Amino acid sequence: MTREELTAKILDAKRKKGLSWKQIAEAVGPGSPILYTAALLGQMTLTKEEAGKLAKFLELDESEVALLAEPPYRGSLPAVPPTDPLIYRFHELVQTYGTTWKALIEEEFGDGIMSAIDFDMEISREQNPKGDRVRITMSGKFLPYKRY
Amino acid sequence: MTREELTAKILDAKRKKGLSWKQIAEAVGPGSPILYTAALLGQMTLTKEEAGKLAKFLELDESEVALLAEPPYRGSLPAVPPTDPLIYRFHELVQTYGTTWKALIEEEFGDGIMSAIDFDMEISREQNPKGDRVRITMSGKFLPYKRY
Amino acid sequence: MTREELTAKILDAKRKKGLSWKQIAEAVGPGSPILYTAALLGQMTLTKEEAGKLAKFLELDESEVALLAEPPYRGSLPAVPPTDPLIYRFHELVQTYGTTWKALIEEEFGDGIMSAIDFDMEISREQNPKGDRVRITMSGKFLPYKRY
Amino acid sequence: MTREELTAKILDAKRKKGLSWKQIAEAVGPGSPILYTAALLGQMTLTKEEAGKLAKFLELDESEVALLAEPPYRGSLPAVPPTDPLIYRFHELVQTYGTTWKALIEEEFGDGIMSAIDFDMEISREQNPKGDRVRITMSGKFLPYKRY
Amino acid sequence: MTREELTAKILDAKRKKGLSWKQIAEAVGPGSPILYTAALLGQMTLTKEEAGKLAKFLELDESEVALLAEPPYRGSLPAVPPTDPLIYRFHELVQTYGTTWKALIEEEFGDGIMSAIDFDMEISREQNPKGDRVRITMSGKFLPYKRY
Amino acid sequence: MTREELTAKILDAKRKKGLSWKQIAEAVGPGSPILYTAALLGQMTLTKEEAGKLAKFLELDESEVALLAEPPYRGSLPAVPPTDPLIYRFHELVQTYGTTWKALIEEEFGDGIMSAIDFDMEISREQNPKGDRVRITMSGKFLPYKRY
Amino acid sequence: MTREELTAKILDAKRKKGLSWKQIAEAVGPGSPILYTAALLGQMTLTKEEAGKLAKFLELDESEVALLAEPPYRGSLPAVPPTDPLIYRFHELVQTYGTTWKALIEEEFGDGIMSAIDFDMEISREQNPKGDRVRITMSGKFLPYKRY
Amino acid sequence: MTREELTAKILDAKRKKGLSWKQIAEAVGPGSPILYTAALLGQMTLTKEEAGKLAKFLELDESEVALLAEPPYRGSLPAVPPTDPLIYRFHELVQTYGTTWKALIEEEFGDGIMSAIDFDMEISREQNPKGDRVRITMSGKFLPYKRY
Amino acid sequence: MTREELTAKILDAKRKKGLSWKQIAEAVGPGSPILYTAALLGQMTLTKEEAGKLAKFLELDESEVALLAEPPYRGSLPAVPPTDPLIYRFHELVQTYGTTWKALIEEEFGDGIMSAIDFDMEISREQNPKGDRVRITMSGKFLPYKRY
Amino acid sequence: MTREELTAKILDAKRKKGLSWKQIAEAVGPGSPILYTAALLGQMTLTKEEAGKLAKFLELDESEVALLAEPPYRGSLPAVPPTDPLIYRFHELVQTYGTTWKALIEEEFGDGIMSAIDFDMEISREQNPKGDRVRITMSGKFLPYKRY
Repeated sequence: MTREELTAKILDAKRKKGLSWKQIAEAVGPGSPILYTAALLGQMTLTKEEAGKLAKFLELDESEVALLAEPPYRGSLPAVPPTDPLIYRFHELVQTYGTTWKALIEEEFGDGIMSAIDFDMEISREQNPKGDRVRITMSGKFLPYKRY
Repeated sequence: MTREELTAKILDAKRKKGLSWKQIAEAVGPGSPILYTAALLGQMTLTKEEAGKLAKFLELDESEVALLAEPPYRGSLPAVPPTDPLIYRFHELVQTYGTTWKALIEEEFGDGIMSAIDFDMEISREQNPKGDRVRITMSGKFLPYKRY
Repeated sequence: MTREELTAKILDAKRKKGLSWKQIAEAVGPGSPILYTAALLGQMTLTKEEAGKLAKFLELDESEVALLAEPPYRGSLPAVPPTDPLIYRFHELVQTYGTTWKALIEEEFGDGIMSAIDFDMEISREQNPKGDRVRITMSGKFLPYKRY
Repeated sequence: MTREELTAKILDAKRKKGLSWKQIAEAVGPGSPILYTAALLGQMTLTKEEAGKLAKFLELDESEVALLAEPPYRGSLPAVPPTDPLIYRFHELVQTYGTTWKALIEEEFGDGIMSAIDFDMEISREQNPKGDRVRITMSGKFLPYKRY
Repeated sequence: MTREELTAKILDAKRKKGLSWKQIAEAVGPGSPILYTAALLGQMTLTKEEAGKLAKFLELDESEVALLAEPPYRGSLPAVPPTDPLIYRFHELVQTYGTTWKALIEEEFGDGIMSAIDFDMEISREQNPKGDRVRITMSGKFLPYKRY
Repeated sequence: MTREELTAKILDAKRKKGLSWKQIAEAVGPGSPILYTAALLGQMTLTKEEAGKLAKFLELDESEVALLAEPPYRGSLPAVPPTDPLIYRFHELVQTYGTTWKALIEEEFGDGIMSAIDFDMEISREQNPKGDRVRITMSGKFLPYKRY
Repeated sequence: MTREELTAKILDAKRKKGLSWKQIAEAVGPGSPILYTAALLGQMTLTKEEAGKLAKFLELDESEVALLAEPPYRGSLPAVPPTDPLIYRFHELVQTYGTTWKALIEEEFGDGIMSAIDFDMEISREQNPKGDRVRITMSGKFLPYKRY
Repeated sequence: MTREELTAKILDAKRKKGLSWKQIAEAVGPGSPILYTAALLGQMTLTKEEAGKLAKFLELDESEVALLAEPPYRGSLPAVPPTDPLIYRFHELVQTYGTTWKALIEEEFGDGIMSAIDFDMEISREQNPKGDRVRITMSGKFLPYKRY
Repeated sequence: MTREELTAKILDAKRKKGLSWKQIAEAVGPGSPILYTAALLGQMTLTKEEAGKLAKFLELDESEVALLAEPPYRGSLPAVPPTDPLIYRFHELVQTYGTTWKALIEEEFGDGIMSAIDFDMEISREQNPKGDRVRITMSGKFLPYKRY
Repeated sequence: MTREELTAKILDAKRKKGLSWKQIAEAVGPGSPILYTAALLGQMTLTKEEAGKLAKFLELDESEVALLAEPPYRGSLPAVPPTDPLIYRFHELVQTYGTTWKALIEEEFGDGIMSAIDFDMEISREQNPKGDRVRITMSGKFLPYKRY
């Protein structure tokens, strides 16, 4: 079984049971629902314990539990740039603001990068009379180019 | 004169005068330094007033002021995926979390997108004993697919 | 079951029953036949009610109804540019007139975009002695780049 | 002189004289402002008479007039998919609705295409209390696959 | 059943029965063998009558008859440029002579294109003592860019 | 001087002198105007004698004459697939009919190709009350795969 | 059955029987082992007689014999440039020496090409105390650009 | 000065002096004319002595001599696959015979590659009454995958 | 059975038995665990003896043993650049330091390459109070461009 | 002045003065010659002090000193995969061993990556009677995926 097949199986089970990502996340553990959702979509790992809870909830077998605990070959997009409009807007932000992020982060922190590994993120709803807004907060460790 | 030539001229002037983006932004107006930096890098527009102030500060001529007030052909990356590591990390976030963002935003808001046009952003330093962190907060209006 | 498999199943059923898109649209609801066709081709969502009516008409099961109500991963083209001549002509219009649309919309509305989300469209036949014409009317909300 | 250089020269002249596309179109002739703008952006041809009027208005020489009357090598986008958000939204419409257009046009007209050559288009502002809308009307001759 | 699967089935039947394209074309109708071959390879449509004759000849079912009468998603090449040498030579002709065709057709006819839809073609053997030659005659309606 | 620069110079001279390709071809020699046009567009070679006649007609120097007699690095399209509609239609023919040409040529001639080198071509106008047609006749030597 | 499936079946049979390409070639006929190997890998055709001998040797059925005698859709590489190091080195030779081959062949033969169709090749081992060498000899008919 | 500019200068000098590659090679030294031609086209290095002789012959300065002795950034093709027909035929050979070469070299030598670095090549004319042939002989050291 | 299917089967067996790569490598033989892991992932060959030991350990059949001893079609990445962050970092090193490696290796060794075939590698953990480090040591034979 | 122009200027100065990278590195400071070479090739930053020393050595002006201290837009390869054989071999290592590195690093360290930012490297000559070897030692901090 490949990780893609497992993701498809999980999506089928979620649909059949009428579950939301939030409900699944609550069943899996107290951790970040973003991380859990990413793991179920084949991009992050669960601990064996979390995978075990999921297995009970969605009727997965032992081998599938083991697969969920293995680091996956990451990359969730079938094509680049992404064709899906919701995801494309993030690609557009990188296209439009990429050099600006580079300029301002380097001015503030020096030569280096924002880590996408030692990284945390939150998504929330921002109430707004003109139309609610999606609020995403990212926090990544700054890693300077080291000299040895 | 193309917008790319104007950006190159602005970068040269910034280097020769030893200015930071923050100093230039303060000279241009009270608006967002991210927006001003993006405009100077050829991705956003300045108002005529802002462009005028910049012109005095960096010795630009009238035609260059007019160019800064025109909507540019956006797209700041010489190649996709971006080869620069700082910018690539953002591309990697889209690759790793794109489908997760889609899943969670649609669960919360319904079928639609987060606007990259009616959009706001902040970048700041997050003090941390294990190494300071880059904090980016994005807020985009949710746009539902409308039916007519 | 993936959305692509569901689309294939719907196309098979349509062919076996000898139905037109118009007939299917009428069975699904009073909404836009364009939107319904797009949904059946895996690009838009149906409401649960609409999906339920379709299910009866085309003998789909409950899980397939749920899938039709989920936002799909959009993108209907197997390759870009599209190889099919009918669809390529639209790609050609973007190639030929893209910069013209940008110039004229920005001159009329300012810096921003025409939304492809808050968007409506009609297709009709235009009688013409020299050969009938396809008439497509698009209407999308203008979204200005906002400043915060 | 290449057509690209001529387009750049026209854009510079337009900026220096503070002209709008509408003003230029009025100077060129009674034809469609969309067609005139496309021609000035290097995608369509002007008649010699129109090119002559433009030449007086923007101070072009005879050889430039001749160039404006030559069919250009069409294709206005520096990359596909286009990185500019305004133009990308049209690309997105082709991605999302391409197969739908194909299905509905073929159902109505039979096997064939909508011509992008025997083609006409209008752009206008649609007043709307929730935010004005961009209205684009396209009309292209239907061309059936002929049998000989 | 997809059109690709139907094409594969037709190729299998042709091989098992030891038929030539010419024999199949004669069974299908009095029309162009090129058009019939293209239809069987998934690029053109047959009339219901033609498809019916083919069905008897190759033992296809009703649903397959219906599929042959539907406009296919055209595009017969697994990759561009084509890797097959016979087909690549045509690609090479477009590469080498494309701009020449453009120059000479526009000089003779004005700004416009040769239609690939209102189009006819013949292939024949040209006897030649130095080695027989393939003769291809194409005839496409000239479509001028129209102004409205 | 590169061949591209020479082509640009020839196009400029042609425009300034108001010449047609036909007139230039007549000045160059009695050979095929298609071949001459292709040579001037940087895709074919002229004999020294032909290049010499052209040089007098268009005021080229000796080194440019030598360049016109050198085999060029062929390939006339800035991008594949070509964005120009006139040239794209030929690409579309390869896309739609490529596998059909392969099937029918191989059925008639056996395993091999139609040469694009030992190749001849004519373009002419076909008078037609429904609209004149472009007629292109190609003739290429059939080259069988040889066994040694 | 596609040609790819047949190739896979032949590779399986070869492995199970522990055969070498040389042994298979000897069973097929007196022709070039390179040509036979290429045919079994789906790139060349066998005569019916050769295919018949192979069928007995590897237990293929009649339809598979017919398939081996059909000209295949050529192109043996899953990606370009090829990722396999042995094959990539040949790609590298084209990259490094392509323009040199062009310069020297044209200087010796005039404007034209070396045929890849009327073409022969041998591969052999060259004994060498510093390490044996692979020797490849290619011989292709020179085809001059003809004028008509 | 870049290596590309030096190559262009050498090509101009060669054309103005009416020299052949053979004449230049003889002036440079007793080595392989293929290697010398490749070096002048920017793909190989000359020794300082050879570069010095060339410099006298073609009037190059000291800095250009130094550049000819530096290993260049190799890669002679403006696009892959190459658009020039002469060079494309070699690409086609890799496409058609790549997997065959792999199969036969590995059968004879074991797992490894033919070196494109410890490599030698000759090009010659093969007289043939049916049309002369290009003969290319390649010899590359076999390098087995080593185990440590 | 293809090599990809065999790799999938090995990964499944490894997961079900809860084995590490190290444990498998120890069962296969005394050679390099990197080489063994690469072989099991479809990129290197095992000797028949090693493949035999593996077969007992993981319950593979004779045909699978033979497949493991065949040189595979190498290339382990589903896309280039790789989307997986761990592997991408190595791609980034090539992007950032490629020209530096070229400059320094050529300065030290002359014109040539570091072999990726006569090549050895070790991976180890480097204890470090600020966070352990991955240490990779590569050693490849220098191969100079030879002259003949 | 762009960074690419500065790199070209530095390469010209290095060639004219007959300097090696080692000599330049010694003039710049006591740091890693790899880092200094990478900086001069436009991929790393120098401190102002180092850039100042370089300026004296190679006669650069103040503005060029400032440019060398700015983080560059990284990415040293004109195309991916790289066409230069020396650099391609590293790309080949990523292609062949990428999934192996992933498997073994994750087995040893858990889910995470080897940093290409907090990274160090050495290149040296390994004496060997069968031919000297290039030895490259890389050491990058392991960064685990963190959970917050």
